[in-house]
Amino acid sequence: MAGPSFQALPGFRDFTPRECAIRNYLFETWRSVARRCGYVEYESPILEDTSLYLKKSGGELSAQLFRFEDQGGRDVTLRPEVTASLARLVAEHQRHFPKPLKWFEIGQCFRYEKPQKGRGREFHQFNVDILGEGGPSADAELISLAIESMLAFGFVEGDFVVRVSDRQAWIDFATEHGVSEDDIPDFLNIVDKIEREKPEVLEKRLGAYQLTADQIRAFIAEPSNASAAYDAIQADLSARGLGGFVELDLSIVRGLAYYTGVVFEVFDAKKSMRAVAGGGRYDTLVATISDGSVDLPATGFAMGDYVIRNLIEETPHANMQMEVWLQRNAANCDVFLVVADESKRPEALKLLTNLRRGGISADLPLNPVKVAKQFQSAERSGARFALVIGSEFPDLKLKVLSSRTEESLQADDAVEWLSDRLLQPDGPLLA
Amino acid sequence: MAGPSFQALPGFRDFTPRECAIRNYLFETWRSVARRCGYVEYESPILEDTSLYLKKSGGELSAQLFRFEDQGGRDVTLRPEVTASLARLVAEHQRHFPKPLKWFEIGQCFRYEKPQKGRGREFHQFNVDILGEGGPSADAELISLAIESMLAFGFVEGDFVVRVSDRQAWIDFATEHGVSEDDIPDFLNIVDKIEREKPEVLEKRLGAYQLTADQIRAFIAEPSNASAAYDAIQADLSARGLGGFVELDLSIVRGLAYYTGVVFEVFDAKKSMRAVAGGGRYDTLVATISDGSVDLPATGFAMGDYVIRNLIEETPHANMQMEVWLQRNAANCDVFLVVADESKRPEALKLLTNLRRGGISADLPLNPVKVAKQFQSAERSGARFALVIGSEFPDLKLKVLSSRTEESLQADDAVEWLSDRLLQPDGPLLA
Repeated sequence: MAGPSFQALPGFRDFTPRECAIRNYLFETWRSVARRCGYVEYESPILEDTSLYLKKSGGELSAQLFRFEDQGGRDVTLRPEVTASLARLVAEHQRHFPKPLKWFEIGQCFRYEKPQKGRGREFHQFNVDILGEGGPSADAELISLAIESMLAFGFVEGDFVVRVSDRQAWIDFATEHGVSEDDIPDFLNIVDKIEREKPEVLEKRLGAYQLTADQIRAFIAEPSNASAAYDAIQADLSARGLGGFVELDLSIVRGLAYYTGVVFEVFDAKKSMRAVAGGGRYDTLVATISDGSVDLPATGFAMGDYVIRNLIEETPHANMQMEVWLQRNAANCDVFLVVADESKRPEALKLLTNLRRGGISADLPLNPVKVAKQFQSAERSGARFALVIGSEFPDLKLKVLSSRTEESLQADDAVEWLSDRLLQPDGPLLA
Repeated sequence: MAGPSFQALPGFRDFTPRECAIRNYLFETWRSVARRCGYVEYESPILEDTSLYLKKSGGELSAQLFRFEDQGGRDVTLRPEVTASLARLVAEHQRHFPKPLKWFEIGQCFRYEKPQKGRGREFHQFNVDILGEGGPSADAELISLAIESMLAFGFVEGDFVVRVSDRQAWIDFATEHGVSEDDIPDFLNIVDKIEREKPEVLEKRLGAYQLTADQIRAFIAEPSNASAAYDAIQADLSARGLGGFVELDLSIVRGLAYYTGVVFEVFDAKKSMRAVAGGGRYDTLVATISDGSVDLPATGFAMGDYVIRNLIEETPHANMQMEVWLQRNAANCDVFLVVADESKRPEALKLLTNLRRGGISADLPLNPVKVAKQFQSAERSGARFALVIGSEFPDLKLKVLSSRTEESLQADDAVEWLSDRLLQPDGPLLA
C-alpha cells in the first residue's frame, strides 16, 4: 500500500490555484480567439473504442495508448488526440449544420510517453477544424487562426513562424521516382525523420527506393517545388496582412498517417522548442471513419498547453501580459468584510449575501478573531476593499487596502456603491 | 472490427455545439458563483493511483471503477470522484495557503454504472470544499454556496430544498444502542437505505443490532434529535436570509464512507429526481490520505451536470434563463462579411482581420458565391450585421439583419463603428 503519502502519477499534473489560473488563461485566450474568428465549440468523449484510433491515427500513437478493457469487456482507450473522435462525431451530425463547419474543442489528451520538459502523459489541446471545404482558402482561414492565437498571447512578428508544407508535393515526388502507393507512408516517414535519423540508417532506408538523402534535401531546398495550394495560401494570408508569419518548409510532413495535403507547424523563431502547434489537411478521414457514408474534406490544427506555456514564460512581453492577467485573477475576493463587533455578525452575513447576489466577489472570516487579524486576512485575500461592520451599523467604514484611505457608507447603499467603485480604475480584481 | 460507423461508448456523451453550449452555461454559472463567494479554482488529475480510492471513498464506488493497469504496470483508475484527490493535493500543498482553504473544481468523473436518465458513465461535477475550519460556520458558508448556485440558475424559493442531517447524531444513536464501532459503517448503510430496502431485509439487518425500523423512523421523525451543529447552521443561514431553503432530514446519511459529521443533499421540491447536489463533513480524510502528516477538518459538496440540467429543463423560469443565454451564444459570429465584388476579396480579408483583431466576432464566405447566397449564409450564421464589400470599396454597406435596414460606412471606421454598435441594445451575440 501507499508510502507516507499519495502522489500524482508520473506525467500527470496537480493544478493548484496558480497552475489552474495559468491553465484558465490559456483556455480563455483560445476560446476568445476562436469565437472572434467564427468557430463554435464542441467536445468529444475522453474515452473511446480503441478501434477508432488503431490505423486511423497510425504511427507512433498506437504504441503510446492508455488502453484497457472496461468492466463490460470493451477494448477502450483514453483519447491520444481528438481528430478521430471529431471525424466520428461529424459523420454522425454534419447534416444538421451548414457547411463549412468551423468547430473547436479545448480538451485533455493522454499518451504514454517518457515525461520530460514540454511533454507529459496528459496535456490539454486546443483543436480547431474546418470541414466541408477542400480549397486552400480553408487552409488559409485555419492558419490565420493559428497566427491570431499567437498574437492574442502577446507574441509579435519575429517571435514565431508558421512553416507550411504540402504532403501532395512529396506524394508527387515519390510517384515520379517510382515509389509504389503502398510504400508512400514509409517514404513520408523517412522524410519526416530526415534531420533526426542517423545518416547510415537514412541512406539505407532511402536506398530501398533508389533515392539518396541529397535528392531529398535538394527537393526541400528548391522553393519552386511549392504546390499551387501553398501559393494560394500565401496570397490569401498576405491580403490579411499575415504573409510575414508564413514560410515554405517542405521538410515538414507531420507524424500522423491521416494527413493528405497541406500541413504546417508553428515554431518559435529560434526553433529552440518542439512545435507550438501543428496540423493540416485530412480529406479522407471522415470517409474512412464513416465507412464511406459521409465524405467531407477537412483541415485542422492542434496547439498543446505545454509548449505554448514554456514559450510564453520565455518571452518577456508575452509573459508580462500573462502575469497581468494572473494578477487580476489571483485575488480570493474583491471585498473582504471585517466584523469589528461580533454582535453584528448576523448583519454582516446578510450584507455578505447581498454583495455576492449583486455580483460582487466578497468574503468574511468564518469565526470571531481580532480586528487586526481580520485586516491581515483581508490583505492576504488580495481584496481591494475591507468593509468594516461595527457597533455603528448600518454606518460602515470602507478601507481601500492599496492606499489605506478610509471612507464612510451606509449598509443599504453598499452593493450599488461598491459595484460602482469596482467599475472605476483599476477595476474588479476578479473578472 | 467496427460496423458501418463508430459510435460513442455507452454512457459517454458527444457534446455537439448546442450540447457544448449547455455544458458551458453550467460551467460558467458554477465558476461565477464560486468566485463571487471567495473560492479559488484548482484541478486534480483525471487518472490516479487506484489505492487512493480503495477504502478511502468506500461503499459502492469500488465496484464501479474504470480501473486498469497502465503500460508501466501501475494499477490506475479514472477518478470516480474528486475528494480523495483533493485531500492528497491539499496534504501536499496546504502549507502555502492561509486557512481556511476555499477551493472549487469543475471536472469530469467516471463510474461504470448502468446508463439511465440522470446518470451516465461520465459526468461533470462542480466540487466545492472548505478545509481548515471545523465549526458549523464553515458548513453554513458551504451550504450558502449550494443555495446561491441554485438561485444563479434561476431557481426560486419553493423550487428546491436543502435537507441537512448529521452523521454524528446517528453515531451517537448507534453507540447508545450498543452498536460496536466496527459495525457503525454497516449501520449507517442500513439507515441510508431505510426507504429503499425491502422491509424483510431491513428488519433482518437491523435485528442483528437488536433494533427495528420503527426505532429508526421514530428517531428521524423527532426534530429535537437535530445536533447543535444543525441549529448553528440554521441560525447562520437564517441571518443570511437563506433559512427558508433548509430543513432537517435525519434520513440523509450519504453513501461515501469518509463522511464524519454534518451531511446534506439538495433536492427539487417535488423530490422527483435524484439529489441535485450532496456533501458534508469529512474531518479525517486528509489525515488518512496523508498518513497523519496533515490533519485538516473539511467540508465539501458536489453538484453533477446531469440532474441540474434535467431540473433546469423541467422548470420553466430556469429553462427560460438558460435559453436566453444559449440564444446569445448560438451565433457563429456577430458580423458576416458579404463579398459583393470578388476583385475586392483581398480588401475583405484585410477588413475581416481588422474586425477580429478589434475583438469583433466576424466571418466571411471562403469561396466566391452569389450575393444572395452569401446573405443566406449571413442569416444562418446568426449574425446581427451583414457588412457588404463591393466595387465602391472603401464605401461599405451595412445591413442590420433583424430589421433589414441599411446604413453606409467607411472601411477605416468599421472597427470602431461596429464595436460601438455592438455595445448598444441588444449587444453582441457572442459574450
